[in-house]
Amino acid sequence: MLGNLNKYNIVLASKSPRRQELLKGIGVDFTVLTKGIDENYPARLPLIDVAPFLSLKKAKAFEEAELPENYMVITADTVVIVENEILGKPKDRNDAIRMIHMLSGKVHKVVTGVTVHTKEMTKTFSVISKVTFENLENQEVEYYVDNYRPYDKAGAYGVQEWIGYCGVCNVEGSYFNVMGLPTQKLYKVLKEF
Amino acid sequence: MLGNLNKYNIVLASKSPRRQELLKGIGVDFTVLTKGIDENYPARLPLIDVAPFLSLKKAKAFEEAELPENYMVITADTVVIVENEILGKPKDRNDAIRMIHMLSGKVHKVVTGVTVHTKEMTKTFSVISKVTFENLENQEVEYYVDNYRPYDKAGAYGVQEWIGYCGVCNVEGSYFNVMGLPTQKLYKVLKEF
Repeated sequence: MLGNLNKYNIVLASKSPRRQELLKGIGVDFTVLTKGIDENYPARLPLIDVAPFLSLKKAKAFEEAELPENYMVITADTVVIVENEILGKPKDRNDAIRMIHMLSGKVHKVVTGVTVHTKEMTKTFSVISKVTFENLENQEVEYYVDNYRPYDKAGAYGVQEWIGYCGVCNVEGSYFNVMGLPTQKLYKVLKEF
Repeated sequence: MLGNLNKYNIVLASKSPRRQELLKGIGVDFTVLTKGIDENYPARLPLIDVAPFLSLKKAKAFEEAELPENYMVITADTVVIVENEILGKPKDRNDAIRMIHMLSGKVHKVVTGVTVHTKEMTKTFSVISKVTFENLENQEVEYYVDNYRPYDKAGAYGVQEWIGYCGVCNVEGSYFNVMGLPTQKLYKVLKEF
């Protein structure tokens, strides 16, 4: 499948081991090459548009000269939105605990924006999933943070970890999108290149 | 967490590596001990009740003498229901291809029934998830069946494999329930023992 991609040297611009695993899972061969950007976005941007905006910004950060010949760059950004606030990566233990308490007993949105960029074409899209957490006890939140140290994760949780097994009672939409890459939609978009 | 289970020797009666991984994921220590049963069920049983019925039958198949002291037995059964038919494990390649074509472009239900059985108490419950498949092309179905050989899976697919990444556009409910064990509900039930 995706034989149409054989003409490209594919670069995934993400350090996330979860994204790397998911992209492999849909059958894409790639190398990893990342480039730091400032993750600021315009203050008036609707929260729902932040992840695709940042994925496009990550793609534009590459100069063509840095890229292999016949390149395709795939970038992604994931945000957690709860009660009209974006939760990024937690600063420290207290911040992680605060974030998970904000999610406890509520529904939140996870938006992943993805940009697929070649010399000829740039496509940006996003996928929204809705995640419902159980009411979590304080000792459960602390147990999770101290044992799983979710400091590299937006919203301070990984749905594929203990807290996803025990604390998430409902996902509506794509589970893999919550992990960090909307595999099914990405597969459809990649077919078009 | 689940320190209340320390008094039990826990037996998981399932050969499924996915169930073993999920039970480990919620932090339960267990050994695996399985017992073959005939998987017949009463013809008039509503389809939705088949999985919990079979999980209870699997638990009852154990004689107390076979079990360790202070035992807790956990059994589970997963079925796929589409258009008022239960899809079990496929008989062969053609049967697997037929099943996936039945699921293509439609919503189906996945029901996992679980029984937790100790000397003092037996609890049976089930969880339903709804899964939506994209319209799959014939070559995608054959690619999946030939590369992943889903002969040990109800409905002939594993949601955690290529076909789940590329072919499933929506899950409503528990993703882990679709994999074979409703981890969040099981965690809640185990707290009560």
